[in-house]
Amino acid sequence: MLNDKQRGLLDKPAFAKLVTLMPDGHPQATVMWYRRVDDTIRMIAPASAAKSKNLDRDPRSTIVVDDPESGYSYVELRCECEVVHDDQAARDDLFHIASRYIGDRASEFVAGLDEAPRVLFIFHPFRVQGQIRD
Amino acid sequence: MLNDKQRGLLDKPAFAKLVTLMPDGHPQATVMWYRRVDDTIRMIAPASAAKSKNLDRDPRSTIVVDDPESGYSYVELRCECEVVHDDQAARDDLFHIASRYIGDRASEFVAGLDEAPRVLFIFHPFRVQGQIRD
Repeated sequence: MLNDKQRGLLDKPAFAKLVTLMPDGHPQATVMWYRRVDDTIRMIAPASAAKSKNLDRDPRSTIVVDDPESGYSYVELRCECEVVHDDQAARDDLFHIASRYIGDRASEFVAGLDEAPRVLFIFHPFRVQGQIRD
Repeated sequence: MLNDKQRGLLDKPAFAKLVTLMPDGHPQATVMWYRRVDDTIRMIAPASAAKSKNLDRDPRSTIVVDDPESGYSYVELRCECEVVHDDQAARDDLFHIASRYIGDRASEFVAGLDEAPRVLFIFHPFRVQGQIRD
């Protein structure tokens, strides 16, 4: 599904723009930390967040990641999202996600989270587009 | 609608992530040049592009702009889009849009465009969210 260039871009500490669908069908977009695992993308969020409720109701979602070094390089992933309602699994994954952005401070960051239950999003892309400049 | 901080972010030569809805309702996202005019956002695209067809059919759209200097600052605009089918108006606007990104090379850029008809998108936000760090 993903080629080497796309994997290379996705493995940078870039920010994902996650798009979900509100109950009325209007797209909602937020900026998120994430990590790639094989051909899937993982993120976590509070179970009570609008995006979590949206994905529980409708798994159709789209992710854009643009290169922090050049806005002319980006990848768009159209996905179905699997929402894992397992607070511990989400917190465990967050450590790996946060390490991409804040390195050694990740465990302190995860330990400092409030107690509101988290969910783990596993995005399965079925269509990949975009452009990556050399 | 927009406050000074949001206008300040939007006036940077940042890249907009434009979300439209495919015929089946799945969100489509692309990375775009744009400019702000008062409380609206303008972009242009080929009339034949998927995003143009999507916006012709369904004006519901969402724009995210994140700060090129910090992914932790961003603004999300939920919009209704007015699609102006006027090739000359679109090309005239593109000059102003392109000037934000490539300065003096904008007129050469516009002159070098192929002849495929362009449309002008005027996005009217009805809800603005996000976070802007100082």
